[in-house]
This record gives sequence, structure tokens and C-alpha cells, in this order.
Amino acid sequence: MTGHAHPLAVAIENRDAAGRCVIVCEHASNAFPEPWGALGLSDAQRAAHIAWDPGALGLARGLAERLGSVLIHAGASRLIYDLNRPPQSRGAMAERSEIHDIPGNRALAPETRLMRTEALYVPFHATVRAEIARRLALGLDPVLVTVHSFTPVYAGKPRAVELGVIHDADPTLARAVLAEAEARTPLVTRLNEPYSAADEVTHTLALHATPMGIANVMLELRNDLIATPEAQVEMADRLAPVLEGALARAANVEGAA
Amino acid sequence: MTGHAHPLAVAIENRDAAGRCVIVCEHASNAFPEPWGALGLSDAQRAAHIAWDPGALGLARGLAERLGSVLIHAGASRLIYDLNRPPQSRGAMAERSEIHDIPGNRALAPETRLMRTEALYVPFHATVRAEIARRLALGLDPVLVTVHSFTPVYAGKPRAVELGVIHDADPTLARAVLAEAEARTPLVTRLNEPYSAADEVTHTLALHATPMGIANVMLELRNDLIATPEAQVEMADRLAPVLEGALARAANVEGAA
Repeated sequence: MTGHAHPLAVAIENRDAAGRCVIVCEHASNAFPEPWGALGLSDAQRAAHIAWDPGALGLARGLAERLGSVLIHAGASRLIYDLNRPPQSRGAMAERSEIHDIPGNRALAPETRLMRTEALYVPFHATVRAEIARRLALGLDPVLVTVHSFTPVYAGKPRAVELGVIHDADPTLARAVLAEAEARTPLVTRLNEPYSAADEVTHTLALHATPMGIANVMLELRNDLIATPEAQVEMADRLAPVLEGALARAANVEGAA
Repeated sequence: MTGHAHPLAVAIENRDAAGRCVIVCEHASNAFPEPWGALGLSDAQRAAHIAWDPGALGLARGLAERLGSVLIHAGASRLIYDLNRPPQSRGAMAERSEIHDIPGNRALAPETRLMRTEALYVPFHATVRAEIARRLALGLDPVLVTVHSFTPVYAGKPRAVELGVIHDADPTLARAVLAEAEARTPLVTRLNEPYSAADEVTHTLALHATPMGIANVMLELRNDLIATPEAQVEMADRLAPVLEGALARAANVEGAA
């Protein structure tokens, strides 16, 4: 079923790592490979947050290293296909993002939507599902952690939150991350900000964590805090113990329930 | 990711059909192919309802033909891997089913569980996901219908229900099927009997319908009513209009909401 997969659809690192976290970064890349190309966007637009989550991959990789965890990330821009949206969503192949029109996404034919879906969405999520299924079969007790970044100013409004901690149906791990981040870091941390499941940003969690009954959390970092490789390393140093503490805390909550 | 798929993991029929239903039959087969073989079970045990859902594939195929719908079904017994269970579930590779021990499933090693998961579970659900994603990308507005059968007598107790109509989080389509079945057929029809989501029988719906936001229903027929090919044809004649009526009814409910 993956005969149509694009070579940049998905990459997996540290597959043999035994840590509990399965770290997923859907918006890791601002590459605009063939056959799609630049979608009519300028260099500046393709470098901006509308095309990807700047800093998220560096942070995700730093967390995977520190936690001994597998990392799954995408290789093409979210503007070609936003992997955190189902195929029927307008946001999957957005005609407009924030204040920018996306010329190459205007009035896409169903066949074009299908081609992108089969090239990028289907193989990406097949890989995440297979990796989680593999770890469940082996009794490794996986949890799903997705890593994102958000822009400090959206539609002209500055955002005070620095770390957003978002969950799908089960809030256990997200609440534990919030508590650990507040205890261990000076970051302005908020539950379900700047987005929440009601904004349809938990598609990956809903696909892979909720139906498998596994704990899950989506981390959203304000991208000015992870703008350089050095800052990403520093943030990974800061957040790896937060995740470790949260896993222990969530296990205690489950044990007491 | 499907390099380990068993050749009997999944079959798809009527893939080009444009009808809204995606019909799935997880327990279609009582085949015990190599490398697993009979799991130490007798011929009688392998013919019994513990190994498959007798009659379900014939009914599902009859519905797919009448509704112009795609059909996805499994080719190996549920006792090798129950596709309606996640890999960490005891029921995925059950050591015991009703009153029967399953010798070939006793104390399976993690590597054995992994091999079955990658051979059967991962490719089956990858195919269902890809087919639903394809139809969503094309704007075909799919709904998920799974077809099962249950034994008239379970653990010594007879069951009066003839048609069970089961849903995951969204009850809209299931309620519409219940109403249409009561209006159009003499079948003893019940919502969420003889099982419900609380019994963990809605894994396929939870994987493929709920996170995609599509309507879903699981049909459970008492297997004495679909024991022969003729009875399966008759039941398909009876239930196809029920599903058609239910889709129209559910669309009206959504439209009014």
C-alpha cells in the first residue's frame, strides 16, 4: 500500500532504542521537493513558520538522544501536506496560512489531493503505527510524544506562553509534564495553549495514542526559544528530565487509580 | 513497513466501487496457514466460532455487492491474531477462548507476538487506513461498517438478540441502523449487544473511524441466521436497504444538527 510513497515522506532514527517515548515530529522540514516544488512561495515564505515548525526537529532529536528514544520525522513541508490533519481537512493542503496565500494549493483537484495523501500522509502514519504496534507487541509500554513549535507573534498578537502542553482524550501525561515543567524550569507553561484538541491539532495523538490506549502529549515550544542549534540543545537538556519525571509521575497516578 | 506481511493478511475487493461504505470483515477466515498451522486445535475447534465469525464474509460480500462498496477482509484465523484487538491485548493472541485452551498461543515470547503483529495486524490495518484516506482525499465521504457474527449460545447461555448494532464514540449511524432495522425487518435488534465498546470490541472503529471523524457501525449477526450461502444472500438482501436507509437518516440528523 506504500507504492506511492515519496522518498522524503518519513525518516526514522534510533529505531532500536528501548526508551518508552516514541517521539514524532510532523512539521520537521521546510523542504519543497519535486514533484511539488515551491508552490509559488517566496524564499522568505518558505523559511517562515507557515512552512514548518522551526527548531522542532533539533529539539526532538536532542530529546530522543537523551531519552534513548526512537524518533520519526517528516521530510517535506507542512504546506505540501500537513501530517497533523486528515485528508478531508481544509488544513491538510491549506490554500491560506495565517496571512499568506499558498498559490500552489489553490483549488486542488481531488486527484492531486489523493496523490499528496498517498505520497506523504499514508506512509508517514503507517510508519508511526507500525513502530507503535511493534513496541506494544514487544511489551515495551510506549508513550507518544509529538514535538512542535509555534510563532511568538500570530496575526499581529504576541504570545506569552513559552511551552504549551497539549493532550488528546487522556490528559494524564500532559498534566504530569505541566507539573514537572513548573517544578523544574522557569518556562511559562500552559495546558492546552496556544492550541488544544478543539482546534484539531491532536490528529496524530488521536490516530496513534488514543485508540491504542497509550499515554500521549504534544509539546509546543515558542520558536524564538529554539531558534539556534545551541538553543535546541539547551532546551533538550532542560526538557528531557521533565519528560522523565512526568513518565514516573504518570505511572504513579495510574498505579494509584 | 509491510515487508513482513503474510500473503493472507488482507484482501480487498471492489476497490473502485464508489459507494460510501467501507466494509471490513476482520474475522472472515478460519484458515490456519503456515508458519503457524493449527495451533494444536482439533478440526472441530478450527471450524467453530472461536476461530472465526461463521457467515460474516458471505454477508459482508453480499452487502458490498448490493451497496457498490469496497470490501476489506482478513485471510487468517482470529486465533492466530485477532485483528480487532491491539497488540498488547491478551485477546490479540488469546491463550483461551470461551471454554477452549489454545495450545499454540500458550506463553508466547515477545518475538513471536511481534512476528504475528507484523505479519497480520500491521498490514491489515495499513490497508484499511490507506483505503479510507484515499476516499477522504477524493471527497467520497466514506463510512466504516464492520461485519461480525456471534454464537447463539455462549458459555451455556442462549442469546435472544439476532442483530447487534454497536458503535464507538459517535452513535449516529448505529442509532440510524437500529431504527431502520426495526422499521424494515423482524430481526430482534439491540444497540450495543451482545457486546459494546466497553468490552473492547470496537478497536477497528476506534482506529479508523473515530480519529478521522467518519460515521461508523459494527454489525453483529447471530450466526445461526447466516449459516449457509443462501441465508447469507437473504440477509444481505434484507440488510442492504437498512444500511442505505440508515445513511440517509444519519445524513438528515447531521444536517439538522
